[in-house]
Amino acid sequence: MTLKTRRAFISKSLAGVAGIASIPAVLNSCCDNKNKPEAAVPGFMKKNLRILFQGDSITDAGRDRTIPEPNNSRAMGQGYSFLAAADLLERYPSYNLSIYNRGISGNKVFQLAERWDTDCLEIEPDLLSILIGVNDYWHTLSGKYEGTIEDYTNDFRNLLKNTKARFPDVKLVIGEPFIVVEGSAVDESWLVEFPKYQEASKSVAAEFDAIFIPYQKIFNEAGTRVENPAYWAPDGVHPSIGGGRLMASAWLRYVFGI
Amino acid sequence: MTLKTRRAFISKSLAGVAGIASIPAVLNSCCDNKNKPEAAVPGFMKKNLRILFQGDSITDAGRDRTIPEPNNSRAMGQGYSFLAAADLLERYPSYNLSIYNRGISGNKVFQLAERWDTDCLEIEPDLLSILIGVNDYWHTLSGKYEGTIEDYTNDFRNLLKNTKARFPDVKLVIGEPFIVVEGSAVDESWLVEFPKYQEASKSVAAEFDAIFIPYQKIFNEAGTRVENPAYWAPDGVHPSIGGGRLMASAWLRYVFGI
Repeated sequence: MTLKTRRAFISKSLAGVAGIASIPAVLNSCCDNKNKPEAAVPGFMKKNLRILFQGDSITDAGRDRTIPEPNNSRAMGQGYSFLAAADLLERYPSYNLSIYNRGISGNKVFQLAERWDTDCLEIEPDLLSILIGVNDYWHTLSGKYEGTIEDYTNDFRNLLKNTKARFPDVKLVIGEPFIVVEGSAVDESWLVEFPKYQEASKSVAAEFDAIFIPYQKIFNEAGTRVENPAYWAPDGVHPSIGGGRLMASAWLRYVFGI
Repeated sequence: MTLKTRRAFISKSLAGVAGIASIPAVLNSCCDNKNKPEAAVPGFMKKNLRILFQGDSITDAGRDRTIPEPNNSRAMGQGYSFLAAADLLERYPSYNLSIYNRGISGNKVFQLAERWDTDCLEIEPDLLSILIGVNDYWHTLSGKYEGTIEDYTNDFRNLLKNTKARFPDVKLVIGEPFIVVEGSAVDESWLVEFPKYQEASKSVAAEFDAIFIPYQKIFNEAGTRVENPAYWAPDGVHPSIGGGRLMASAWLRYVFGI
């Protein structure tokens, strides 16, 4: 009998015998820490790991940019990086993790480069997670930005090249830029050019041996679970709470196998 | 054919041919949705569930009080209620959940009563989760508040009695107020009187058939996993990010068995 079925069995028995409404309170000697075994440490996790999330508004997610310290809720915003950080900080309390968010709303990849010394290199990350690209395409639609897919690709490549030159051992994570075409700010016309940016992010990830997180596939699949896929990102670009958690869950799974 | 209808068409076709209930699990080569089966819906979960988190600063957690809408990240703050909401909104996307946070920093139980019409009854919750009590004791230490354990107990009881009178079917969740004695604002002198508030919260929970979440035990156990238990709540009262996630995980487990 597995732990789960055993618990279900005990629950039923107790409920039957004693008419107990709240089984968990009775059984909780067994399970309060059951799901967070520190012993099984997967993948890249190690003591004193410094994790940096970088990107645009999806990463920024309303963070307080005046707080430089790691592991601070206001400094982490309310997006996938905060949600992923919360899981890691619960699960690995003795690991002395330092988790930073330096996403800035509206950023394109060249703008990451402009602030890279302060917002990446000085932080000396062991694990650097970047999600960038939706603005590199989106902002061209208004005619106010003229960057091309080649600019995106080359700027991204140079950014990572410079980072690796400084920190050869940094582990990279690249999130695929994604859209939900049912969202209010996006439509199917995006499906002509935007996929090129997605492909570029994937190529760059492969080139730099980065963990690649296929967010488009993840959002597409999640879209099949609801009547309107915009549930996950109402404007098609910025995730809802559920969409942020969807991203965090994927991030944790791809990066740490949890 | 739009992307959405195309997707629906593919889903239907596959379902028709193969009798497949859960398309994502089939199409998903390895793992993207593996851990979120909507089929297994535990406990109190149901469509259109309205969930309200109530309490003090631990629940408030920096929320934007100007936003009344449910499922809004800024309105949810950055504490356990946001973290629990994120999990629920990811896991049950088709359930049309409405999740509210109306915690207010500094509140004692009588202050919940003062704003109950607006901040609870008007919301018409199906599931009402309350965490209150640390200030009912803490604020007596400065001499500026003279409420007693009897006041706490009676006020709490009356609050729930009035709530049940209005909504007989509301499911109640009561979180045990907790401290981390290693925290900077708390010390062992709290262990004389404060446990009476904890006991009272447990008694009231039993009286109203509420799900009781034994946060003190949860924090105590988590404290054994780190060198300094204040990791989970630096000042002994307000959870860190990890502490908030610890609470959210417990809340989800006790309330929904997930």
